[in-house]
Amino acid sequence: MKRIAILGSTGSVGTQTLDVIAHHPERFTVEGIAGGTNLPLLIEQAKRFKPRKVSVSTKALADELRLHISEAEVLYGEAGLTEIAAGTDADFVVTAVVGSQGLRPTLAAIDAGKQIGLANKETLVSAGHIVTDLARKRGVKLLPIDSEHSAIFQCLNGESHERIRKITLTASGGSFRDRTRDELQHVTVQDALKHPNWSMGAKITIDSASMVNKGLEVIEAHWLFGLPYDRIDVLIHPESIVHSFVEFTDHSIIAQMGNPDMRVPIQYALTYPDRLETPSKPLDLTETGKLVFRKMDFERFPCLRMAYDSGRAGGTMPTVYNAANEVAVSRFLNGDIGFLQIEHVIEQVLSQHAAVAAPDLESIMAADQWARTAASRM
Amino acid sequence: MKRIAILGSTGSVGTQTLDVIAHHPERFTVEGIAGGTNLPLLIEQAKRFKPRKVSVSTKALADELRLHISEAEVLYGEAGLTEIAAGTDADFVVTAVVGSQGLRPTLAAIDAGKQIGLANKETLVSAGHIVTDLARKRGVKLLPIDSEHSAIFQCLNGESHERIRKITLTASGGSFRDRTRDELQHVTVQDALKHPNWSMGAKITIDSASMVNKGLEVIEAHWLFGLPYDRIDVLIHPESIVHSFVEFTDHSIIAQMGNPDMRVPIQYALTYPDRLETPSKPLDLTETGKLVFRKMDFERFPCLRMAYDSGRAGGTMPTVYNAANEVAVSRFLNGDIGFLQIEHVIEQVLSQHAAVAAPDLESIMAADQWARTAASRM
Repeated sequence: MKRIAILGSTGSVGTQTLDVIAHHPERFTVEGIAGGTNLPLLIEQAKRFKPRKVSVSTKALADELRLHISEAEVLYGEAGLTEIAAGTDADFVVTAVVGSQGLRPTLAAIDAGKQIGLANKETLVSAGHIVTDLARKRGVKLLPIDSEHSAIFQCLNGESHERIRKITLTASGGSFRDRTRDELQHVTVQDALKHPNWSMGAKITIDSASMVNKGLEVIEAHWLFGLPYDRIDVLIHPESIVHSFVEFTDHSIIAQMGNPDMRVPIQYALTYPDRLETPSKPLDLTETGKLVFRKMDFERFPCLRMAYDSGRAGGTMPTVYNAANEVAVSRFLNGDIGFLQIEHVIEQVLSQHAAVAAPDLESIMAADQWARTAASRM
Repeated sequence: MKRIAILGSTGSVGTQTLDVIAHHPERFTVEGIAGGTNLPLLIEQAKRFKPRKVSVSTKALADELRLHISEAEVLYGEAGLTEIAAGTDADFVVTAVVGSQGLRPTLAAIDAGKQIGLANKETLVSAGHIVTDLARKRGVKLLPIDSEHSAIFQCLNGESHERIRKITLTASGGSFRDRTRDELQHVTVQDALKHPNWSMGAKITIDSASMVNKGLEVIEAHWLFGLPYDRIDVLIHPESIVHSFVEFTDHSIIAQMGNPDMRVPIQYALTYPDRLETPSKPLDLTETGKLVFRKMDFERFPCLRMAYDSGRAGGTMPTVYNAANEVAVSRFLNGDIGFLQIEHVIEQVLSQHAAVAAPDLESIMAADQWARTAASRM
């Protein structure tokens, strides 16, 4: 029986994690869940999965939550999130909160020796060296939940890391892949939220359209797999069937494929190294007919270029890249700026940042805060 | 230093094996080579790789060979082939002779405890239960050299066999994939020998066009990976880039890809579980552009259907399928029968055969001989 805690249980990855758990009640119990503000869903989850601890974002919501559930201890805020991460009997923590708020609780979970199912990519983007160092020291495995990183992770089964020539992350191209830059001037939030292949949360869907998501994934892959940036490639693959692949020194390529369904990588992280049945639809390649691959266009997607640049610059630069993007996306979703201004905000904030090398957590938090303030004023 | 013996050194796989060895002189020595009748090439190979033992097909050729090489012991015939297989200091034997003549020497090599690089698929097709039993008893690993089986083997790295849902072998469709059955009435030997993707020997190229090759591969996969026939699929993939793939219980698919170059699977068998650099061209998927997949048409390719039927019937049936095909292909190459008569010969011979269940080697050899005689008279 594996005991699970979920940070971000009401989000896209969180609900799908619970769906996976519901399909294998003989394998998993839920020790703790932390949600944001969606109280009805959190109540439903608490009643169904009976965690011992539940956390919400604010004290007011916690007080209301207590009226509905009596069996679980109710917590709130960052302290509550950290308690769900590190203070339950869970041996496995799924970190699926959105944004850099996931960093501290993830570190707390690692420090407590819990295995991590990593869906919060900002954790590695902002503090890759700190997170991977601590995981090594505590003997904690970071199991990727992102479909691309799960794909790479699966392709590396039984292989030697020293024999990797390069890894390639595939990108669907997002909701605007068939539009020119000119056509991007006046796209709406609704347009941006229509991802062609994956059903995901709002922020990651916008990040897919801007290619920031792929940029964050590149930086995450750098830390997860210990590879320099020139051995991490990205190419456009509109069907999102080949989720990513690894080329080895002998030019043999191992790829992971499947219908786009997050429950597969989520479950793989939960059951690794074993595999169990999933409710996903099996892939029939003859139904798909063909798989298309195109070169990545870094002119068309400057946010991806900036991610590589930030990653190579290192230090607090990726933190700033990520924080500036979070604010810019939030402003875009609020109708405050246009889609193309997302990249301008990131570019401006990056150009004003004096990177700190090998930053500690305080410096990272400071850079993150500085970037947020700067990005909100651009 | 790995010591290698090669059965069939002058054939397509044999010469490519020596090419791989030539690229890694610090890793491999050649202990013995067995060729057929191509004396000039065998002499060149003997001078270059300095094996201690060399074998040819006949005494006359052996006598001539002795005039040219003085350092190596010269042998001939089936005894010579068996000596190269089992009587050298090699710890790894590549079995790359064509047809069912590969069976006895392969068994001799396994019995002598040598690891096997298996390129002779008829060995498993004709005597899968005997060969796999003996390999298990002797603790010998059968490392597939066929690109499809090597692909599956690579995809299973670090995975549990119990979690395989099915494996899929890809088929280019061979030289006649774009022709209707009507158009196949009058194709010539030269037409048949033009394989679209792979440069291979004559017999296997014809077998690709008739889909017998895929049929033999299905039966071989059944034995190599211990899977029932309804969990072995075949689909058409004209580009021969995805060499084969495995679907696991969670619907995650692991595929192996690369440019068609036999040196990659050959070398992988030699270096397993390690990987080394190869002189092959790295795959650029954006250059390929797209990968196409189509359902297999068992009406269009009845030889594949017959392979499944023979495999399921078991006993001596696959032996007869293979032997009848060998004779039919040879007759087609000699201009004795037309291309479509290959399948008629196989069908007729199969229909006349009373299968022996769980046959011993003698029964297999008898069935093989009977099928050859029958096929030469159809």
